Amino acid sequence: MSRRDFISKASLLAGSSYPAMMALGLLKAAPAEAFNLEGKGTGKHVIILGAGLAGMAAAYELKKLGYKCTILEARDRSGGRIWTVRNNTRETELDGVEQRAKFDEGMYFNAGAARIPHHHELSMHYCRELGVQLETYNNINEAGFIYNDGQGALANKRIRIREIHNDMRGYTSELLAKAVDQDALDKPMTVEDKEILIEYLRSEGELDPDKLYKGTPRRGYITPPGAGDAPGKLADPYELSEIIRSGLIGHSFYNIGDYIYEQQMTMLQPVGGMDMITKAFERKVGKDIQYKAEVREIRKTTEGARVVYADSTGKNKELEGDFCICTIPLPVLSTIKSDFSSAVLRAVDNVSYYEAGKIGLQFKRRFWEEDDHVYGGISRTNMDIHQIFYPSNGFLSKKGTLVGYYNFGDKAVKVGNLSHAEREKLALEQGSKIHPQYMKEFESSFSLAWHKIRYSQGAFATYTSESRERFYPALLQPDGPVYFAGEHTTYLTAWMAGAFESARRSVRDLHERVMHTQQVEVKHKG
Amino acid sequence: MSRRDFISKASLLAGSSYPAMMALGLLKAAPAEAFNLEGKGTGKHVIILGAGLAGMAAAYELKKLGYKCTILEARDRSGGRIWTVRNNTRETELDGVEQRAKFDEGMYFNAGAARIPHHHELSMHYCRELGVQLETYNNINEAGFIYNDGQGALANKRIRIREIHNDMRGYTSELLAKAVDQDALDKPMTVEDKEILIEYLRSEGELDPDKLYKGTPRRGYITPPGAGDAPGKLADPYELSEIIRSGLIGHSFYNIGDYIYEQQMTMLQPVGGMDMITKAFERKVGKDIQYKAEVREIRKTTEGARVVYADSTGKNKELEGDFCICTIPLPVLSTIKSDFSSAVLRAVDNVSYYEAGKIGLQFKRRFWEEDDHVYGGISRTNMDIHQIFYPSNGFLSKKGTLVGYYNFGDKAVKVGNLSHAEREKLALEQGSKIHPQYMKEFESSFSLAWHKIRYSQGAFATYTSESRERFYPALLQPDGPVYFAGEHTTYLTAWMAGAFESARRSVRDLHERVMHTQQVEVKHKG
Repeated sequence: MSRRDFISKASLLAGSSYPAMMALGLLKAAPAEAFNLEGKGTGKHVIILGAGLAGMAAAYELKKLGYKCTILEARDRSGGRIWTVRNNTRETELDGVEQRAKFDEGMYFNAGAARIPHHHELSMHYCRELGVQLETYNNINEAGFIYNDGQGALANKRIRIREIHNDMRGYTSELLAKAVDQDALDKPMTVEDKEILIEYLRSEGELDPDKLYKGTPRRGYITPPGAGDAPGKLADPYELSEIIRSGLIGHSFYNIGDYIYEQQMTMLQPVGGMDMITKAFERKVGKDIQYKAEVREIRKTTEGARVVYADSTGKNKELEGDFCICTIPLPVLSTIKSDFSSAVLRAVDNVSYYEAGKIGLQFKRRFWEEDDHVYGGISRTNMDIHQIFYPSNGFLSKKGTLVGYYNFGDKAVKVGNLSHAEREKLALEQGSKIHPQYMKEFESSFSLAWHKIRYSQGAFATYTSESRERFYPALLQPDGPVYFAGEHTTYLTAWMAGAFESARRSVRDLHERVMHTQQVEVKHKG
Repeated sequence: MSRRDFISKASLLAGSSYPAMMALGLLKAAPAEAFNLEGKGTGKHVIILGAGLAGMAAAYELKKLGYKCTILEARDRSGGRIWTVRNNTRETELDGVEQRAKFDEGMYFNAGAARIPHHHELSMHYCRELGVQLETYNNINEAGFIYNDGQGALANKRIRIREIHNDMRGYTSELLAKAVDQDALDKPMTVEDKEILIEYLRSEGELDPDKLYKGTPRRGYITPPGAGDAPGKLADPYELSEIIRSGLIGHSFYNIGDYIYEQQMTMLQPVGGMDMITKAFERKVGKDIQYKAEVREIRKTTEGARVVYADSTGKNKELEGDFCICTIPLPVLSTIKSDFSSAVLRAVDNVSYYEAGKIGLQFKRRFWEEDDHVYGGISRTNMDIHQIFYPSNGFLSKKGTLVGYYNFGDKAVKVGNLSHAEREKLALEQGSKIHPQYMKEFESSFSLAWHKIRYSQGAFATYTSESRERFYPALLQPDGPVYFAGEHTTYLTAWMAGAFESARRSVRDLHERVMHTQQVEVKHKG
């Protein structure tokens, strides 16, 4: 894998797509939080396809403007990829058997979106406007583990992230301080600048007076400091060569997830589950949603849009509207009959979606907290489970549900091809290498492969520079009466903010068109 | 200031004392969480001086063992330096006038201890055992600001921490990658190791194919990415020399607070205020506390300990017990008559305490969230206010209380010497440089200087290697019937865990003595 490919993959794992973004020019600002459109859309009917966040937010804003909205939703629930799995949640994957969650009441995990970047203005805005209470999502935890399944003295055992972080800060600071000292840089620096830089490196790496890294309490203790004559006992740092040769700074363990803009602290989550957001929207637009309405055809007519859907009995029905906002994920839309333009159809068929899998594991006891002092955050491995996410809520309580894997791409495909029982077995076996308590404390699981989830068929759209250029533009224009929205119509792919931004974009464009038409009609009459 | 002095100061700011710790040998492990002492202390009376966490935890554990406890507390509240300021909280500093908090109901700030490291086992243990609910304390927030009052192109304006963090990661990775490439290191590395290290540095710094740092989305956007044709607009990185010459990697802005063990994520706080912990202990030992009991004399008698105290009317009273656990902070203890040994008295007189100041500011509107997307975390400056702490709770609500300064040493003395009105003015003026919204949104303040707070007279004990060697040991032995406890008798100075560890240590030592005496008595009788 080339470096560029890796960064691209890493960005995808992080849920964004900035290499493509950077490759493109910088065109236009995203809409600001204020959204004060003028004029009324009274009398106009908009059919919205999908009661995910994009669809519900579009309906919510359109209704403020006086539009009539009908949301057709294939599932018996709203939210789409905003999905909190609780006791009795049921799901049947595309080629699977029905799975039913057997969690204790009050236990849950967020199977789709799970964290909100603090700078995603619209995500924060809608939580504020709709009264959804937020708490910190603890995405960074130095007490998490890394586990490299491979060769080397430090492989095949769990190591605290803080040990590697601080050893690497120490060694790289030491190496650079010496290079600066010896004028071994090809960039000229003044004596004063070098002095300041060296002092900074001393503090970064906690170097000794000879500018050497000899370990630090930052990496934790063998025996912690305490009362009386207990100053604490430090371990020696790992050798740099040992870290390198054990794969611990290899690409599986790059710190990208800690650094990228979308995953920097502060991150947030709704108190009580991500579906608090979908429930908040339901309170506003719930009565406009027709559930179990599976769209079969989308047609442009002389009057507007006509949508054929199968209702809960499987019977075909038709709905006509002045406009349509289609938020259906492209892999699903690709299976629906339509008379879209060829440019739109090519985009629908060719934009890639990423595979992702998750498993929620309920345990009798929060051993990761009680035994290992891990409160939230992530452990990272190069195994199929890829990562373990610990809950950022319910600290100190008795039971807990953690995400036993959240994997992508090849790993998600491989694990997703297993039965639910086999996925559970894999999650427990691999997770046990980090937490031997797994087997004893395990109670039940619920697993999913987003690329096999009906009505989603993918975790999120993933653009390359090429697909942004070739296919993306077709999705930004209305195809007759049909507007496209959803994370796939944004540069915020994989994030809820993408759904919200796209909803506003489609509402603004549609409303401007209606207002323009009204003006023309008024002139005509006048 | 020498580097060693600086690191020492920095450690103090961080609230720990590991240079001293490292200088000393590694003697004995801290007590583990399990605390199953055998035997009963029924019939023995222990006088505990101070209803802070050390005193209350000692009483709680002693009562489990059957001891009778009396806690003398000078204040009209428990908790000591665990103190949550709420509406109507009153305090008169040593040379001051009474101050009364005028906050809205439900608004508060933690004037003393505010955050719990996840690895402080006893802090977590007592919260678990006493049912204190915890939530994430968001100590690290890349969206916080740094503001250097000084010279340079980037001085005198607020800059997001993430910009400097990522620029510095970029430049240092670039410089080191080139040095490694050119074999400019004095440590020999194999070709394979160098390749892995360089790839790691590429990812750390997000270097371009030529291993140059040219900026990164990690540092944020001028215009964020959005829907449609809005890929986001990036700013250029700052120049390395510009960062250096603007003081932004000077010692005021070292990343120590992000890295040290005590402040690494995850940190936690009780839901509803730190005094939820003191209230939980009060439920267990509250009826054993005599409030407004100001200790005047501590005497060793042939039978045990005698304590003279002034009650709420100012009248002297005497209390006799078999033992005494004294948790009174040393600067206060220094003013109390006693017949302690000369070694103890020298320790009491000579162990330094650090000065610290805090101000809570209530604002009409959480502009730091609404306007600036700052949810928790810290802004850092070299001004007198030193740092601004944003609340990690109550996100998205209307009003908020932040900590307008939390300063130490010289800055705390300087600001502490001002009147409350002048402190408020200083906090608002300096804070306005980071948040111009301050003046418009401000409602009320409550300030304190811990070194001027009656019955504390200091924020926490600060040991040097020398004072650990000369004075500390005297505090670890009972002086006749009197045991010493409190953070100053630990290597966890400034942390609640110190209070808890010391409480257990004194209880264990005292109980072992009683058990030993009982055995001797049994033998004698038998």
